[in-house]
Amino acid sequence: MSTTTVSEYLLDRLAQMGVESVFGVPGDFSLQLAEKIIDHKTLDWIGTCNELNAAYAADGYSRVKGVPGCLSTTFGVGELSAINGIAGSFAERVPVIHIVGTPTTRQMKAKPLLHHTLGNGHFEAYSKAAQHFVVASATLSEPSTAGAEIDRVLVDCVTKSRPVYITLPTDLVNAIVPAVPLQTPLDFKDPENDTATEAVVLAEIEKQVSIAQERVVVIVDGCALRHGVANEVKDLLEKTKFPVFAAPMGKSSVDESYERFVGIYNGSPSLPAVKQTIERAALIISIGAIYSDINTGGFSHDLPKTKLIELHTDRTEVFHALYPRVGMKRLLPKLTAKLQTPACTMSIAPYTYPIPQEEHDGITQPWLWPTVGSYFEPGDVIVADTGTSAFGTLDIPLKTGSVYITQTLWGSIGYSVGAALGAALAARQCQMGRTYLFVGDGSLQLTVQELSTIMHLDLKPIIFVLNNSGYTIERFLHGPTRSFNDIVNWKWTKLLDALSDENTVSESYKVTTKTELDRLLSKPQFGEVTTLVEVVVPKFDAPPVLRRYLQ
Amino acid sequence: MSTTTVSEYLLDRLAQMGVESVFGVPGDFSLQLAEKIIDHKTLDWIGTCNELNAAYAADGYSRVKGVPGCLSTTFGVGELSAINGIAGSFAERVPVIHIVGTPTTRQMKAKPLLHHTLGNGHFEAYSKAAQHFVVASATLSEPSTAGAEIDRVLVDCVTKSRPVYITLPTDLVNAIVPAVPLQTPLDFKDPENDTATEAVVLAEIEKQVSIAQERVVVIVDGCALRHGVANEVKDLLEKTKFPVFAAPMGKSSVDESYERFVGIYNGSPSLPAVKQTIERAALIISIGAIYSDINTGGFSHDLPKTKLIELHTDRTEVFHALYPRVGMKRLLPKLTAKLQTPACTMSIAPYTYPIPQEEHDGITQPWLWPTVGSYFEPGDVIVADTGTSAFGTLDIPLKTGSVYITQTLWGSIGYSVGAALGAALAARQCQMGRTYLFVGDGSLQLTVQELSTIMHLDLKPIIFVLNNSGYTIERFLHGPTRSFNDIVNWKWTKLLDALSDENTVSESYKVTTKTELDRLLSKPQFGEVTTLVEVVVPKFDAPPVLRRYLQ
Repeated sequence: MSTTTVSEYLLDRLAQMGVESVFGVPGDFSLQLAEKIIDHKTLDWIGTCNELNAAYAADGYSRVKGVPGCLSTTFGVGELSAINGIAGSFAERVPVIHIVGTPTTRQMKAKPLLHHTLGNGHFEAYSKAAQHFVVASATLSEPSTAGAEIDRVLVDCVTKSRPVYITLPTDLVNAIVPAVPLQTPLDFKDPENDTATEAVVLAEIEKQVSIAQERVVVIVDGCALRHGVANEVKDLLEKTKFPVFAAPMGKSSVDESYERFVGIYNGSPSLPAVKQTIERAALIISIGAIYSDINTGGFSHDLPKTKLIELHTDRTEVFHALYPRVGMKRLLPKLTAKLQTPACTMSIAPYTYPIPQEEHDGITQPWLWPTVGSYFEPGDVIVADTGTSAFGTLDIPLKTGSVYITQTLWGSIGYSVGAALGAALAARQCQMGRTYLFVGDGSLQLTVQELSTIMHLDLKPIIFVLNNSGYTIERFLHGPTRSFNDIVNWKWTKLLDALSDENTVSESYKVTTKTELDRLLSKPQFGEVTTLVEVVVPKFDAPPVLRRYLQ
Repeated sequence: MSTTTVSEYLLDRLAQMGVESVFGVPGDFSLQLAEKIIDHKTLDWIGTCNELNAAYAADGYSRVKGVPGCLSTTFGVGELSAINGIAGSFAERVPVIHIVGTPTTRQMKAKPLLHHTLGNGHFEAYSKAAQHFVVASATLSEPSTAGAEIDRVLVDCVTKSRPVYITLPTDLVNAIVPAVPLQTPLDFKDPENDTATEAVVLAEIEKQVSIAQERVVVIVDGCALRHGVANEVKDLLEKTKFPVFAAPMGKSSVDESYERFVGIYNGSPSLPAVKQTIERAALIISIGAIYSDINTGGFSHDLPKTKLIELHTDRTEVFHALYPRVGMKRLLPKLTAKLQTPACTMSIAPYTYPIPQEEHDGITQPWLWPTVGSYFEPGDVIVADTGTSAFGTLDIPLKTGSVYITQTLWGSIGYSVGAALGAALAARQCQMGRTYLFVGDGSLQLTVQELSTIMHLDLKPIIFVLNNSGYTIERFLHGPTRSFNDIVNWKWTKLLDALSDENTVSESYKVTTKTELDRLLSKPQFGEVTTLVEVVVPKFDAPPVLRRYLQ
């Protein structure tokens, strides 16, 4: 009978799922797995500077590549450092596999007073803490069950699109298990819908579309991205020509250069043309909605139940009626086939983000975002940190095949730097375009070291650091001039050089005027190496959508 | 009746306990408290670059100042980023107060889909995760119980010498509570010992000391430091003249320049003279022992029960007999008073760490550590990261009034950088000497940004970065030449400049030879500003004690 080892079983499963890179920091309980990863025929080990950044990188990797991100950390110290990143992936519904190297199976039972333990014998404390932030976990403890346990959590990771947690004791790394199950790839298909209920739903939606006539619109949200229905949505839109919006968490799930794309809808902060079009609709088909505060403009979205059809992963809602066990993945193709109405001709305003004319040459956020956005190309990856960067990039129309990454729900500042590492690596593996990172000075300080790994891997992102002298978004909320919102004004243009080795080439620029930024962005060789642009903007400046949000 | 607010009640309690600084990163749920801290008459807000570093800083602050360290973070994203630091304080028994700003009391009940939540309504998930790593927690939810809840956890923090966790909803920051309880400072005294048992213990110890005659030694360990019995131990030693050792976790609890100090005892890796003296003892009085792997040289310590008396916080053990409810804090003064034996004259070898003579001028770790140690002065604070730095500093004799900081049990790499911030700040507040930070290149990468805060506060530590091309201690454990133990070789001498503002002066040096380092350290103006010294040492070099440990 063909055999393998527990670690190789796990790594082969990752490879089958399309994972090519595992992020992490080695520790003495995880060194053995790191070695197995390096020795694996298709997987790469990506050593990060710290574990939180590894978690962020795995999250960013997943969002671009469409497969789970994966990280490996060591018992206690390593895994706990990553936990905020894992919790963020849970909240944002990103599939991430967290593999934790632990003491041996014998030690996990006998609980000696080892380093990296709490000193109280509570060896299970870390996995108990992790339970709150993962959708499944496997405590590998013997070879006989290891394969089935691994398979179980990997299926949950993908089908539920959430993080999972696997502990791998050092003595199981090389334990022998049957290789036969590997011949059958794991089944990640969504469950079948309830046939009878689905038929009712289809008839009901068809009827409502018919009643609404021309005035049907579609809004796509976070779960459309996370649960992989972009193609099904595209088919529906192409057939029906319904105008389509994205909620902030759904941004880039629909091609924003598509002629029927109206813009980003987040309630009252939305652009006027966007709001007006939603308000004109008689029927709104919402796909994968997540009604979080920031995703809905502070709960200001205006989607009345009486004209709202909601498609979710596990249910469909038509007005006030809830139909369980009718998931969107299987419903959408049937709906597209069923709808036989003529192509919708409801007029929409073109989705543009004009560059405002300003009298002075200083850079403002209203000018900055559309200007930078005008340089984006198809297939680019846009990573924006929480704060002004996330709001600023929201209304930029992205080109075909772009991926947009931010944490609208979780909102952990500093996330974008680690995420950019994972995203840019995935983009290279997927032959996508350039990665842009937009991060405020305050946010960059949390996770700055990962710029090092980005350069080491030669990923060549373009990094815009908004120098607005601290936590600007918080100045709008409380204590605008209080010192707790100040930060140390680093020499931003010296960072890339300090955080790289002698063989790495990078470029850094500081721009304070429109003329300087325009000249820089239009240089033909701009961005041929990892490039950091420090953009000096006023301390109390904000993108228009943020100003509308705070009104 | 005199009143105050919940936040000011809490802050006044901190001030009464001797806390002067609160570390943290502001978030929208914790901005209000940050403002209250800045406005408090004796407290300072110390903004750190990220939350993990804030937790490390609070830990380092506590170890130097002898009062709890304190940090403030925001709901979810902030507190979870700090959790590894809190768990480390729990393991190492360092009192730390973690204050978490949360949504309002109404929101905590209604659980709307707010940012920084998991999206599943589990608002309690973070505090449940925290429970594993704190000794007490208070979920403040109404003014009527807030004061008592705060007092309860603060008492637990100090008396149990472990972290505690307090959640403060934004709407309670300014809620009114009676100020009267503040007139009575909290009672942190240890519980009384059981009188009858204590009398038996005293008689038994006196008898055994008498039997052992000259051959009694004392070994002090981590809990002697954490539970504040340094003065009681000193009195015992001065009266009896018993030779005294420290375990690694007890290093600096006894003055290492004291003539009866033998050295660091950690089992088989101990210096030969240290081991021989322990072996000659007929009776060993152990104070505050923590028998963790690294603290005992991988469980190689040789302290036979038949000659061992153990003093702990809550019990005393004489040979095989355990006497509950007899704690060392109250036992030690009585023991000192009772022992009337003549001053011990057992001979000991002087505690020195001679600088080896080497043929070549390259820097080696056997040469580096005693050389650097020869520049230490009384009252210096020595912070060493896990790995070769912790082992290298272990056998350096420290001068009177020094404080030694490392994580022997928890061993989270990167800890030392945040800890150095808190330690150096506390040292300034206590008018102590200079802070030395010893950190390997790999460890520094995890937490490097906090060098910024250290410079911003003008704390002027001397930072030795061991450039040994990666995770050297792990090379000894697994995969000595494998790439997962490599790191990016930063331009270390450019870090301080990049991570500081235009007004900050710092100095950075790279040394590769003994001559260069000697010349640098003996410059009169060396260390007048924050100074980083990159010390290039061989990739596979290690301090002698680490080599003995790994044998």
